[in-house]
Amino acid sequence: MNKEQSVLYPYVSVDCVVFGFDGEKLKILLIERNINNSSDKLSDKKLPGSIIYEDEDLDSAATRILNELTGLKNIYLSQFHSFGHPERANNPRDKQWLERTTKLKIGRLITVGYVALIKINRKIIFESENTTARWYDIASLPSIQLAFDHNQIAMEALKYIRNKVQYETYTLFELLPHKFTMTQLRNLYDIILETKSDVRNFQKKMLQIEGLEQLDEVQKDVPYRAPRLYRYYKKRSKSTPKK
Amino acid sequence: MNKEQSVLYPYVSVDCVVFGFDGEKLKILLIERNINNSSDKLSDKKLPGSIIYEDEDLDSAATRILNELTGLKNIYLSQFHSFGHPERANNPRDKQWLERTTKLKIGRLITVGYVALIKINRKIIFESENTTARWYDIASLPSIQLAFDHNQIAMEALKYIRNKVQYETYTLFELLPHKFTMTQLRNLYDIILETKSDVRNFQKKMLQIEGLEQLDEVQKDVPYRAPRLYRYYKKRSKSTPKK
Repeated sequence: MNKEQSVLYPYVSVDCVVFGFDGEKLKILLIERNINNSSDKLSDKKLPGSIIYEDEDLDSAATRILNELTGLKNIYLSQFHSFGHPERANNPRDKQWLERTTKLKIGRLITVGYVALIKINRKIIFESENTTARWYDIASLPSIQLAFDHNQIAMEALKYIRNKVQYETYTLFELLPHKFTMTQLRNLYDIILETKSDVRNFQKKMLQIEGLEQLDEVQKDVPYRAPRLYRYYKKRSKSTPKK
Repeated sequence: MNKEQSVLYPYVSVDCVVFGFDGEKLKILLIERNINNSSDKLSDKKLPGSIIYEDEDLDSAATRILNELTGLKNIYLSQFHSFGHPERANNPRDKQWLERTTKLKIGRLITVGYVALIKINRKIIFESENTTARWYDIASLPSIQLAFDHNQIAMEALKYIRNKVQYETYTLFELLPHKFTMTQLRNLYDIILETKSDVRNFQKKMLQIEGLEQLDEVQKDVPYRAPRLYRYYKKRSKSTPKK
């Protein structure tokens, strides 16, 4: 093998997996790629992502691209894994879309995955000429065929978060509103860790987290007996419940 | 900004941070780049790494490159972070070395970092025409000026391992020989976590790890009272000592 021929000029992109929680379900932010022309129509879903510019580092690219495609600002994005299968951009549909949107002939595409956890009360329906950003249930993801290897990237991001929550339970509070109920916290925990926690034990365990406090307030405007509200006031500390 | 002009064709490389422990000190595997010609001499150190081939995925590239540069085989490499500062390959020394070894004009270089933990009893002094692989003390690393941003990459890898050991203490056993003393285990723990553990408490804590067992053997050929040996028989489980 001639070494010079075997070395490639790949394109590098970033893709952002943004998780949100609406109090009941864990959601993922996807964009629709809508490109209509006379011959065909591309209308399917993908992660917010794009090719990086020559003069920006990976973190800046992720921040810029997420903002351009979803309108989101000031989001804490963590790099979690890079994906570089030689054939990950070989699907004709994806190739066609890349050429139309970038006006470039793209062979190999290596992407750096970022993950963010946000409170879903931030408004997000962002429409531009070519894309619309929307929340989708994580549970429905296996039945949605995403572009490229984005199904795999989303699942890897979920695994990354699951692992993080196991050791740093306070990670959950990034997804919850400022004030939340114990049921919301347990729902979220159980969805991410794929568990079914016992109500009493869960509450006991959570109340050991430094910074989690019960408020003298209850949830308003609920048709049933109003549950107590909690808040977490100490973010990014190392407090985890004792096992 | 013209979009087509601002999109780049970067090269993508992998770099491997290989840690080993010799019973007393934590070491890192570095290669020397020796390129002599009439005009000048390049002789400094870098992480084992190189540009990926067009037809290989990132994990395969890491395995191939580590083998080519150090002779190491069957090493478990974990991807931990990608580094893409736009100027990370701008040092003239690094540019010159890249051009000599790859015969390519390389502008931007994005690298995917991998980390491995190995038992240092594996023999490693590997010499090829252009490189020699050798172990260096981690403690001496700040005083060694590595190529590119390799000092930063090595430090990030160490942080990654430190975080892992905090939650998955059994990670340490990947660095220890099959049979080891409690002092060796404590030394390693203290180096990685930058702590100074109390001898008694440490032993108590470690013996709670499922799979760690005291043997009916003592260390041989030592000039002092021979210490007891231990082994760990259950790798990659989720056992961590209770805090």
